Amino acid sequence: MRILVMNPNTTASMTASIRATATAAAAPGTEIVATEPLWGPVSIEGHFEGYLSAAAVLDRLATLDTPFDALVMAGFGEPGREGAQELLDVPVLDITESAAQMAMMLGHAYGVVTTLDRAVPQIQDRLLTAGLLQRCAGVRGTGLGVLELEEDPERTVEVIIETARAVVRAGAEVICLGCGGMAGLDEKVAAELGVPVVDGVAAAVKFAEAVVGLGLATSRSRSFAPPRPKVIGSWPLSTHLGLGRAQGSPRNTDFSAQTSDI
Amino acid sequence: MRILVMNPNTTASMTASIRATATAAAAPGTEIVATEPLWGPVSIEGHFEGYLSAAAVLDRLATLDTPFDALVMAGFGEPGREGAQELLDVPVLDITESAAQMAMMLGHAYGVVTTLDRAVPQIQDRLLTAGLLQRCAGVRGTGLGVLELEEDPERTVEVIIETARAVVRAGAEVICLGCGGMAGLDEKVAAELGVPVVDGVAAAVKFAEAVVGLGLATSRSRSFAPPRPKVIGSWPLSTHLGLGRAQGSPRNTDFSAQTSDI
Amino acid sequence: MRILVMNPNTTASMTASIRATATAAAAPGTEIVATEPLWGPVSIEGHFEGYLSAAAVLDRLATLDTPFDALVMAGFGEPGREGAQELLDVPVLDITESAAQMAMMLGHAYGVVTTLDRAVPQIQDRLLTAGLLQRCAGVRGTGLGVLELEEDPERTVEVIIETARAVVRAGAEVICLGCGGMAGLDEKVAAELGVPVVDGVAAAVKFAEAVVGLGLATSRSRSFAPPRPKVIGSWPLSTHLGLGRAQGSPRNTDFSAQTSDI
Amino acid sequence: MRILVMNPNTTASMTASIRATATAAAAPGTEIVATEPLWGPVSIEGHFEGYLSAAAVLDRLATLDTPFDALVMAGFGEPGREGAQELLDVPVLDITESAAQMAMMLGHAYGVVTTLDRAVPQIQDRLLTAGLLQRCAGVRGTGLGVLELEEDPERTVEVIIETARAVVRAGAEVICLGCGGMAGLDEKVAAELGVPVVDGVAAAVKFAEAVVGLGLATSRSRSFAPPRPKVIGSWPLSTHLGLGRAQGSPRNTDFSAQTSDI
Amino acid sequence: MRILVMNPNTTASMTASIRATATAAAAPGTEIVATEPLWGPVSIEGHFEGYLSAAAVLDRLATLDTPFDALVMAGFGEPGREGAQELLDVPVLDITESAAQMAMMLGHAYGVVTTLDRAVPQIQDRLLTAGLLQRCAGVRGTGLGVLELEEDPERTVEVIIETARAVVRAGAEVICLGCGGMAGLDEKVAAELGVPVVDGVAAAVKFAEAVVGLGLATSRSRSFAPPRPKVIGSWPLSTHLGLGRAQGSPRNTDFSAQTSDI
Amino acid sequence: MRILVMNPNTTASMTASIRATATAAAAPGTEIVATEPLWGPVSIEGHFEGYLSAAAVLDRLATLDTPFDALVMAGFGEPGREGAQELLDVPVLDITESAAQMAMMLGHAYGVVTTLDRAVPQIQDRLLTAGLLQRCAGVRGTGLGVLELEEDPERTVEVIIETARAVVRAGAEVICLGCGGMAGLDEKVAAELGVPVVDGVAAAVKFAEAVVGLGLATSRSRSFAPPRPKVIGSWPLSTHLGLGRAQGSPRNTDFSAQTSDI
Repeated sequence: MRILVMNPNTTASMTASIRATATAAAAPGTEIVATEPLWGPVSIEGHFEGYLSAAAVLDRLATLDTPFDALVMAGFGEPGREGAQELLDVPVLDITESAAQMAMMLGHAYGVVTTLDRAVPQIQDRLLTAGLLQRCAGVRGTGLGVLELEEDPERTVEVIIETARAVVRAGAEVICLGCGGMAGLDEKVAAELGVPVVDGVAAAVKFAEAVVGLGLATSRSRSFAPPRPKVIGSWPLSTHLGLGRAQGSPRNTDFSAQTSDI
Repeated sequence: MRILVMNPNTTASMTASIRATATAAAAPGTEIVATEPLWGPVSIEGHFEGYLSAAAVLDRLATLDTPFDALVMAGFGEPGREGAQELLDVPVLDITESAAQMAMMLGHAYGVVTTLDRAVPQIQDRLLTAGLLQRCAGVRGTGLGVLELEEDPERTVEVIIETARAVVRAGAEVICLGCGGMAGLDEKVAAELGVPVVDGVAAAVKFAEAVVGLGLATSRSRSFAPPRPKVIGSWPLSTHLGLGRAQGSPRNTDFSAQTSDI
Repeated sequence: MRILVMNPNTTASMTASIRATATAAAAPGTEIVATEPLWGPVSIEGHFEGYLSAAAVLDRLATLDTPFDALVMAGFGEPGREGAQELLDVPVLDITESAAQMAMMLGHAYGVVTTLDRAVPQIQDRLLTAGLLQRCAGVRGTGLGVLELEEDPERTVEVIIETARAVVRAGAEVICLGCGGMAGLDEKVAAELGVPVVDGVAAAVKFAEAVVGLGLATSRSRSFAPPRPKVIGSWPLSTHLGLGRAQGSPRNTDFSAQTSDI
Repeated sequence: MRILVMNPNTTASMTASIRATATAAAAPGTEIVATEPLWGPVSIEGHFEGYLSAAAVLDRLATLDTPFDALVMAGFGEPGREGAQELLDVPVLDITESAAQMAMMLGHAYGVVTTLDRAVPQIQDRLLTAGLLQRCAGVRGTGLGVLELEEDPERTVEVIIETARAVVRAGAEVICLGCGGMAGLDEKVAAELGVPVVDGVAAAVKFAEAVVGLGLATSRSRSFAPPRPKVIGSWPLSTHLGLGRAQGSPRNTDFSAQTSDI
Repeated sequence: MRILVMNPNTTASMTASIRATATAAAAPGTEIVATEPLWGPVSIEGHFEGYLSAAAVLDRLATLDTPFDALVMAGFGEPGREGAQELLDVPVLDITESAAQMAMMLGHAYGVVTTLDRAVPQIQDRLLTAGLLQRCAGVRGTGLGVLELEEDPERTVEVIIETARAVVRAGAEVICLGCGGMAGLDEKVAAELGVPVVDGVAAAVKFAEAVVGLGLATSRSRSFAPPRPKVIGSWPLSTHLGLGRAQGSPRNTDFSAQTSDI
Repeated sequence: MRILVMNPNTTASMTASIRATATAAAAPGTEIVATEPLWGPVSIEGHFEGYLSAAAVLDRLATLDTPFDALVMAGFGEPGREGAQELLDVPVLDITESAAQMAMMLGHAYGVVTTLDRAVPQIQDRLLTAGLLQRCAGVRGTGLGVLELEEDPERTVEVIIETARAVVRAGAEVICLGCGGMAGLDEKVAAELGVPVVDGVAAAVKFAEAVVGLGLATSRSRSFAPPRPKVIGSWPLSTHLGLGRAQGSPRNTDFSAQTSDI
């Protein structure tokens, strides 16, 4: 089984870190392919960038010429998942919802630690729409920007732990790391915190394996019926922009363990 | 005061109809400018197209060189409003929320009549996120696609009335027309139905006048703080695509009553 | 267009302050008429007084012999709005709901700063019933009674700001002034606070203009159908009490800018 | 223990029927005193009449010179209960909430059968505010006006049963009779329906006995703190109207079983 | 009327204390019979023990050969009530729900003070399922285990008051004692706290009297229909375990005031 | 990895069918061990039997001397999961929640088709408590008892499909089979229905693999902290009842594919 993991921003080092986490989570026989959009913001810290990124991700999906069995969308609190579910025949897992769902399997209430405070309402709204907010004890920002997470990893872990403690005091029994850029920090945080810590990328990979393993896929009967045929100006964008394969090989798509190609 | 009304799809005849409705609703002294994105789908009937359109609308906003005092987003149930609120200093009104809010001023519970059944959950989710779903007695599709609405206007009105009657039986005391393409049909429907009918475009124009009239604007303190400075590849898209002014004058932006120019 | 603004208590100085705020908010061509009940409490600080006032307001409306195009009810968190909607053919706007709706146009979550702590659950219940509580981040009392607001205006503004700061820390991105007696303080508070501040009287005036401007009115189909004909003992109360015109001209109804008479 | 049962309308025959039901429900040693307001509507079928009645009930309470240990308010879906809780030191039970609470002791979900369809949203809102709506499977009108209930009792029972069946099909396991004027019909309806039927007057009397029996009373700490001392014009209304004792003995207040006097 | 009060744990001293509270609450003519299961945990502090106890209580009910008119289940936040409602023809009152319902008759919002923090989510879930959580301002643990409550009664009262104060600050206007083992402490706590304090055992006894007094009983139409006839291995457990009457007389069932026998 | 699948009733043929479904769902390397309680009801159709079964399952778990890496509880809508989470160090997955969570990965709204109508509120309450009810479009009974499901499999499939169609019309985009006894029917139902059909046993097995695969386990910090040490009379029940190993080898525990032994 091949799972495509999509970093929603264009920062290659973040794609690499997400790929590493996904690969570590994958079962034997699961191939992880990670990539990112060909255009759009280097990090997503708000609605404006989130909406650009949603279109950039859909554009990337529309032009990709490699097969895959499931998509993992690796932006926490980002929009776009429903669009990918319409566009693709394979299952789509989003790390926001996967983290929350995994957490709900482990405890009565969960909390989320994210980057900037401005992301908090955005994440709460995604969880609300997903029908997963009821058992959320709190979402809290660390004050660190997405790209700052990588700058001083030790400090990052410390700040996450400190923030997580406040969420635990508010009733969370499990903590979700609320940013794709926090991928890989779960164990360090859990060791200090004494409650399970869920990495959304890892959770989504396992859930993708679960869905594919049962031969299930997105319902096409109503919300996620395929798009109707129609004219879409300048679509796909990357082709009209002269990006993508025409410009050479994908910049940052590689394949963990196995050698393959998009 | 100048209000920019944004049709989220690229169909000029729909922009014209939306402009007419907005102009009819505007107070003396309010200038309506209507336009649409330079790329994207000709109609929006699902999440995929909605997300493309959200980016296309933000792109259009980023490259527009005309001043305006408020933005009205004329897609019913469409994503993107939060992105525009971050991007702009002027107030942003969305017709989905404006229709619901106006309806809540007129009756205890309201209902929505929209196009395709697939749009129903999408609209419900937008209303849920906006905190306006509690008093919604039902959202129901007519089965007509967005562009079909213009094909046989008489039949369209009949089908809307028939669908609205079912929503009234479910408890709605006011009906919202759930598609920008239904702009202008409110009076005909209301005459038959016996309950008030709200056109979201008209409602949003009046609310834009209200907000601007009080000198208020979007809060910049948390959710809708301005985007942080950062690299965004290929942005603005239309410039990189060679669309927009570089290609000549805007195709379909004009100015009701007054003569002006973007 | 003529908007009647009803102060629910009998304190003329508060009617005057509400009238001034309404007049400042009104568009050119909108005439503001402000008045108050002929009997009832001098201020409303609880349910008992609120229910008396609701009847006193309905009594005042039943005996008024002046035409108007919309009613603004200027009691924050007060009962009675639904009764006026049944009684009148013109639209009715309540400042509680108008403040919340305006705030929801400006930010993701809003908060309310009110007078006494005892009003907090009352306001929350009105917002709950109105279907507008979901995005309320908090309602908080200043500890000042309604009539104390006018005693030391500078101190009043200070206390409101201090209280508002706590609501902002709880997630509010917009603040509503939760008492008709705070009318006119919005700008001073906003200047210090850094988030938009909504005055319910001003918001309701603009929304009344919006509703009337579109030719809309309260739905008469279910909740707000006109009262059925029946015997009501001692009604209207003021007539039986010998109050009102029989006693001479209305004590405190005048007309901003224009000269008119009730 | 003496329980005052307040019919919110001025129809003496309805007071008599409510008194009979309350008396039948009362434990040995409980004295029932029933009365109605001295002014106001002969029946309550909407918000306007409900608000008048709320003030008329508070007026009646303010001028009553008889002691009682608890108040039962016998209007279904009527406003005013919170005002009485502020005014009085003794416990106040409302038949709307008492019916729902009793029903929740008997089954998983309950339903309400009421008079006119226009009362449905009003009742739902009272239950929502009371925090008791979650387990309500439906509120449904019979189409009979309040005073029509007494016209053809056999037909009334038939229509109630037919309406109740629809609510049972919607999931109700217990039915509440949603009008004070339906007092006394519970057994006939239950016999046909096969599910428990709750009369709100009877339930409220038992709950009043329960609260008084434990020596408990309304919390005075926040929502229902006593009214603050202040000027209230023309209060109490009935005294200013020349109604009440000054006019002679109360028209319709008597005392089941025991002989006493207000 | 005879009310059976069931302590869900096997600690006889707690049964005695619950019996005393129930007896004090009972009306003249109400006989209280208190007992506890023949097997199971000595106290219930979590889900595992709660589920064992639920079965032990049902076992006790299935083998009891004494008649009673209503059952009061005296475990706060414990599962099992729905099972007893299926098994028995007489009404079943649970102290968790009874406490909350009584509290909602006395104030706008209530709070719960319980034993260990681990019980908090369990109690919240029971209130949620019962449809009674909406007006709960908070549930808070004292840190005292169930059996510790009896160790130092003075300290227990102090800790309860201190914990209750925090819940009052969070908006509670009434406090529920959230453990059957706190039975009898309500007056001491209320005296200090200044808000009404509800003992669930006392409340449930009064509600049982109310339900029985009106001749009502559990609806048998859906959720609580009688169990279908079927094979249940080793049932009743106590008989197969050689417990109960076969071993002699019940260990700890006696009868307040009256002399009777199970 | 070894997953223990617990049929909550004592019917061996149902254990066998559940085992077959679990085994079919398991990944290579996952060993499925299925068993059932040593006492209790042959099927669970209501709260009384559910509570007995919860204790019987906990008893079975307490006496099992075989290691396992995760527990799947195969009763739909049954209580007890929280108790097992306290008792065990390994993750616990319940088929009710797993079915709903899997369904939420596949569509916007889901529905449940179950056995008897009486189970409907029970299932809704479990989903409510689990925080998963928001996106449930309906739970509906087929009218077939648990053991009737196996009697005429063809008719069973037909009735399930017919019932599922009504749930789809109510908005469900995915259907969950709401009884452990429906295990194995998902593909036949899906083929006819045109929307994905989720078998809770299969879903729970995959989620168990996911949780174990990531090295995660139940949070022990609050709700599911291990039981405190205390006296529990007659515990474990099966030992005191002389059931279990003392009576010979487990009746119906075997091991798919691999040969092992409990």
